[in-house]
Amino acid sequence: MEVRDRIIEEATKQFFQYGIRNVTMDDIAVSLGISKRTVYEIFKDKSELVDTCISELNVKQDKKVQEVVTNSVNVIEAIFVFMREGVKAMKVINPVFFKDLEKLYPRLWKKIESENVGKRHDLSSQLLKKGVAEGLFRQDLNIEIVSKLFYHQMNLLSNDSVFPRDKYDHAEVFQNMIINFARGISTPKGIQFIESVTG
Amino acid sequence: MEVRDRIIEEATKQFFQYGIRNVTMDDIAVSLGISKRTVYEIFKDKSELVDTCISELNVKQDKKVQEVVTNSVNVIEAIFVFMREGVKAMKVINPVFFKDLEKLYPRLWKKIESENVGKRHDLSSQLLKKGVAEGLFRQDLNIEIVSKLFYHQMNLLSNDSVFPRDKYDHAEVFQNMIINFARGISTPKGIQFIESVTG
Repeated sequence: MEVRDRIIEEATKQFFQYGIRNVTMDDIAVSLGISKRTVYEIFKDKSELVDTCISELNVKQDKKVQEVVTNSVNVIEAIFVFMREGVKAMKVINPVFFKDLEKLYPRLWKKIESENVGKRHDLSSQLLKKGVAEGLFRQDLNIEIVSKLFYHQMNLLSNDSVFPRDKYDHAEVFQNMIINFARGISTPKGIQFIESVTG
Repeated sequence: MEVRDRIIEEATKQFFQYGIRNVTMDDIAVSLGISKRTVYEIFKDKSELVDTCISELNVKQDKKVQEVVTNSVNVIEAIFVFMREGVKAMKVINPVFFKDLEKLYPRLWKKIESENVGKRHDLSSQLLKKGVAEGLFRQDLNIEIVSKLFYHQMNLLSNDSVFPRDKYDHAEVFQNMIINFARGISTPKGIQFIESVTG
């Protein structure tokens, strides 16, 4: 792997683990056994590094999403893969990471947020339409309303006044959301498949 | 009916129809064919009248809710009665009524809002537990999480940036929410009942 990629990988790992504020360029250099100067030759400052990590993450994420959709038996399987990945991410990523991103890099945060609105809306519509075509979701769904409801329900997770992290297990809330939501829009065939996946 | 009750009834009707700002004490007196003085002898000002109308509405509403729960065959029937009543209310009550209440009577508005949080949460828990006992909702529901999700999903309806009134038929969004949500938490027996009710 090239040095640049190794730096991005290590930085992302450490940002996830400790948050952004707590990780210095020096920490990353030391972990990789390279000089701080090498890091600064590639990224002019931490801000540039953070920016790069986030955009690489986005590219990976988008690729992953389409791979899952393509490789799944059906749309419900895809949704449950996303759910499991989401639960895993919640366990791996320290919530401080998002807090730091929002506080220390507000412009980047807003950019991500506004890109995500569009992306998530497109993905929901895509999945809902596919599910209807596969006979797993009900024909009579109002795709636009349902996809909005889904998107905004998901947003509740990151709303600390609704589900404060010290009182709720976010992974559990997330699973409740996904499973109930998917059941709610499913045909009997869809529900059967959900039950076979959730045991 | 006593004059006091007739004033409250007429005022509530007109507030619903035209909003609060647009209705004067004089309008109400004229509609009832009584003198303005009579109105002012009972309610010292419009603010007191609005306050009284709201608290009478609340008392009626709470009574109605418990009547529906008691008189329904099961909890799903009760939920669909609430849904139909809600849709009816949306058609009868001019959205300006809520806007006026929020803008012109902010203290009253906040009081209602905070009372509603508790009430709606209690009602959701009550209905969910009853539904589980009736074998209509799944045994494995996390009542607390589900009732929070329901409550906050309902709140999206009054969030104008999520479902702007000029772009969405609120009655349709509301029905989508209720039906999908109820299906999502139901057993096969529950879904069968929902289908018998929604046709």
